[in-house]
Amino acid sequence: MIHALRTGAVIGILGGGQLGRMLSVAASRLGFRCHIYEPGANPPAGQVADAVTTATYEDAQALADFADAVDVITYEFENIPTTALDLLEGRKPIRPGREALRISQDRLTEKDFLTSLGLQTAPYAAVDDAATLAVALAEIGTPSILKTRRLGYDGKGQARLQSAKDAAAALDTMQGAPAILEGFVDFSHEVSVIAARAADGTVSAYDPGENVHQGGILRTTTVPARLSTAQRTDAVLLAGRILNALDYVGVMGVELFVTPQGLIVNEIAPRVHNSGHWTQNGCTVDQFEQHIRAVAGWPLGDGGRYADVRMENLIGDDMDRVPDLAGKADCALHLYGKAEIKAGRKMGHVNHILRTGRDQIS
Amino acid sequence: MIHALRTGAVIGILGGGQLGRMLSVAASRLGFRCHIYEPGANPPAGQVADAVTTATYEDAQALADFADAVDVITYEFENIPTTALDLLEGRKPIRPGREALRISQDRLTEKDFLTSLGLQTAPYAAVDDAATLAVALAEIGTPSILKTRRLGYDGKGQARLQSAKDAAAALDTMQGAPAILEGFVDFSHEVSVIAARAADGTVSAYDPGENVHQGGILRTTTVPARLSTAQRTDAVLLAGRILNALDYVGVMGVELFVTPQGLIVNEIAPRVHNSGHWTQNGCTVDQFEQHIRAVAGWPLGDGGRYADVRMENLIGDDMDRVPDLAGKADCALHLYGKAEIKAGRKMGHVNHILRTGRDQIS
Repeated sequence: MIHALRTGAVIGILGGGQLGRMLSVAASRLGFRCHIYEPGANPPAGQVADAVTTATYEDAQALADFADAVDVITYEFENIPTTALDLLEGRKPIRPGREALRISQDRLTEKDFLTSLGLQTAPYAAVDDAATLAVALAEIGTPSILKTRRLGYDGKGQARLQSAKDAAAALDTMQGAPAILEGFVDFSHEVSVIAARAADGTVSAYDPGENVHQGGILRTTTVPARLSTAQRTDAVLLAGRILNALDYVGVMGVELFVTPQGLIVNEIAPRVHNSGHWTQNGCTVDQFEQHIRAVAGWPLGDGGRYADVRMENLIGDDMDRVPDLAGKADCALHLYGKAEIKAGRKMGHVNHILRTGRDQIS
Repeated sequence: MIHALRTGAVIGILGGGQLGRMLSVAASRLGFRCHIYEPGANPPAGQVADAVTTATYEDAQALADFADAVDVITYEFENIPTTALDLLEGRKPIRPGREALRISQDRLTEKDFLTSLGLQTAPYAAVDDAATLAVALAEIGTPSILKTRRLGYDGKGQARLQSAKDAAAALDTMQGAPAILEGFVDFSHEVSVIAARAADGTVSAYDPGENVHQGGILRTTTVPARLSTAQRTDAVLLAGRILNALDYVGVMGVELFVTPQGLIVNEIAPRVHNSGHWTQNGCTVDQFEQHIRAVAGWPLGDGGRYADVRMENLIGDDMDRVPDLAGKADCALHLYGKAEIKAGRKMGHVNHILRTGRDQIS
């Protein structure tokens, strides 16, 4: 059992992007201070954090000082170098724990883990070279998609194969990195479950949201998702099985494909997740506070949903729409304070409140 | 017309307490950075602000540097020395403006202003010495209450008079400061209206909340307040009249006594207000973001209420209840990160969600 942190305690966050920023804000509501560790200068999270360390994940002294300055360590992204984790873990607890990171850092390990729990994934096979790719293609066929096992996000490090002729070009894209070939799943839509597990083993899942991607980047998440009651229950139970198997502490995002053959796990993220941003305007306790509560050893909060919400990411030039969105009713803006607008860069999001109980209340 | 600030702009906040803290968090949602100016060390707002200046209001250089570093200046309390305001205003706009500060810094000026607008206040008279107190007592009678004209808050600088015999002792309490004698108002309950006015003159008021005080300190605010439809309309119109008369930009708290003779204005506060904290869990855009929107020259946001809420202040040893409150459903904690618990000190608040549209939604 983890001792609950008291008000004034310091939560260390690896990564200073928008997730770290919103975690820091949520932590402040519970009286905690946050210390951000981020290699890049002027991280968005630093604008609302009590302290910032600007250093690389190879800087042993900076890592040690950071660990000594905080009470617990969490993270906003999963691709943290193992050497840094080893050093940090020797000094302070890391939550969610190392096993969740080990599994989610590697697409092959992750799929093996999920199938070991009896969950469905896309057909997959390990690919290290042309020979193993040929074997994998024979088994999985085309269309399929070749992905690096590690360090992929937002559609990067991926190559589609329409036919076996694309094999050589796809393999080149991997630049020699260990890869995984995944078969396509014939799904009607994608949903994700944002679930939390407290240090005492309590699990709480938010209502699943329905995701729409464009160009490999999440565009919108809408709650409620199109799911039958049975599918909704399946989704939540499945997330709980993953969390319990990992003895997980914190919030996890679980992406699921909805198919006639049931729910197929696309991927898991051992952290707060873009598809859970709707909770900021749909629940009393949002995913960020839920994560902080878990890593601080607190009980989970009330994650019941009180509104229908469509979360829309503001990417690149979408920022031009902010003056218009600012004046709209039923519209909650969340901007990340990033100085420079770039194509494909997540600059903020907006929660469109589609329906609340307001008519009932007023 | 005020030019709207763009994302990345810096909002300067005078005062680093819990109101500054929650303003800073709200500003971050709109992509703004906050710079706190506060004489005391380690202010709660500094834990979630981009920059902090620790200096007195007599430090001309620090004030000038602060003004130069920000795009607009606002404040979390009204008793800022005039000399500091003069210096700051020469460099950057202050919102809400000086007139609102001038009026709310002095109880007598405030009452004169309110009556000039045709609004009802408690009977009052200026008191400078024993002679004027005798005149005031003859006019207003007892029970009544003698208050310093300036720098009073949370029941401080006040003395009750049960009869004329208490006059000398009450006057001693004022320590020679200019004072005001106020007659008691026979009211059934107190409500407050939190209203906002944008730079373009748009006014938006939150649903009034009903306040309960203990020992001169706000204990709870509950929405909806017990008010007839006519009283509710009166309350909002009255707040709008005050804001328009001041050409006000920002959020104001207006405390009202509910009496058979109508609504009587108790006092106004030219800032976000403790009785508006319920908006954090009852509205899409809370009072803190509404204030930031106004001072940034943005349109006001959606302040419609979607839940019934009881805000309860956590004062001093109430912090012992946090572990219990953390585990309760329909309970949203907001702690201020203050290191030391003191009797009478506001340490946080909790919004109890009494009713939402959840049953309708689920």
